[in-house]
Amino acid sequence: MSGERLAQQLQFILEIDRLKEILRRTLLLNSPRRENSAEHSWHLALMALTLAEHTDEPVDLLHTLKLVLLHDIVEIDAGDTYAYDPAGHTDKDAREQAAAARIFGLLPADQSQTFRALWQEYEARQTPEARFALALDRLMPLLHNYHTGGVTWRENRVTRGQVEARMAPVAESSAALATTVAGLLEDATARGLLPWDWDDQP
Amino acid sequence: MSGERLAQQLQFILEIDRLKEILRRTLLLNSPRRENSAEHSWHLALMALTLAEHTDEPVDLLHTLKLVLLHDIVEIDAGDTYAYDPAGHTDKDAREQAAAARIFGLLPADQSQTFRALWQEYEARQTPEARFALALDRLMPLLHNYHTGGVTWRENRVTRGQVEARMAPVAESSAALATTVAGLLEDATARGLLPWDWDDQP
Repeated sequence: MSGERLAQQLQFILEIDRLKEILRRTLLLNSPRRENSAEHSWHLALMALTLAEHTDEPVDLLHTLKLVLLHDIVEIDAGDTYAYDPAGHTDKDAREQAAAARIFGLLPADQSQTFRALWQEYEARQTPEARFALALDRLMPLLHNYHTGGVTWRENRVTRGQVEARMAPVAESSAALATTVAGLLEDATARGLLPWDWDDQP
Repeated sequence: MSGERLAQQLQFILEIDRLKEILRRTLLLNSPRRENSAEHSWHLALMALTLAEHTDEPVDLLHTLKLVLLHDIVEIDAGDTYAYDPAGHTDKDAREQAAAARIFGLLPADQSQTFRALWQEYEARQTPEARFALALDRLMPLLHNYHTGGVTWRENRVTRGQVEARMAPVAESSAALATTVAGLLEDATARGLLPWDWDDQP
């Protein structure tokens, strides 16, 4: 019985290796390749560990780490949906629910339910830990885009207004991090990396 | 003051992006490229989350996750030292201590000390959480090598005896995982992927 349980768990662990092949739009800071969702998840976990003191409401760090480590696994089947692609978002939920059923379904039933509930909690954004995890997930690509010269903003003609809207959840978890975001956006616009309107650009 | 503290923390977060560029010998399961140490660390964290019930001594999961998430960061400066390269291990400790001083030193002093102590704890292998983290770090590449046809074993003429010695720490944390290891090794040898002596191979 225990052998069967462990076999199911190892099958899940092998399956999620595929998250290393799911590419995001974000570029690495020091290398001209796109980031994958597995290394991104590690980076968010380190961010949670480092920045937890800045939340405006108490957060359970272990719970936050679970949310962050699991939050992108559904992308193995559903793909990474680009933040500024409205079309990709129309069936995002259905694709991700099916992915969660299949991938977490590899685990023993109790663990499958637990992990899937954690993923749902992240998506629902109703707990302090989910709000913090989401804030980090929004802040991280801003840091990347800002520090790689705004290449992906330019390629996709993403505007200051779009990024501001996208960053709104940061303020729901941390005023300190929201202040950081505001400063980066102001500077990015001043430097021409993130205009309010691309058609006004020279 | 708080602004300065947050600025130091963000500097650390940006710096550790480089762990995504440190390549291990291990191949991905479904893609012909080598694994990097950031995505490997994420995978170990998921493994800790999934397999914590199998340890023979109680472990604090949050503490284990901290060890696992931080354990490879020194490789940014020190590089990944291949498990079966004795020469690479002669100055490994000095290189890694210098790396820890520089990289964790980017953080505010209190956090720098805390993170460095966690890394030292992992290296020292004296706590239940460090033993569990190490067991996972040893088990993971065995799973990868076994499921990618033993390519890196063959390339480096790694023997069954070497891998058995390398896997010894697994049994110090979990008899159940050690049983899994023994089964995989037996099967890998039976299939010719991991001989006791490469010179005996046809």
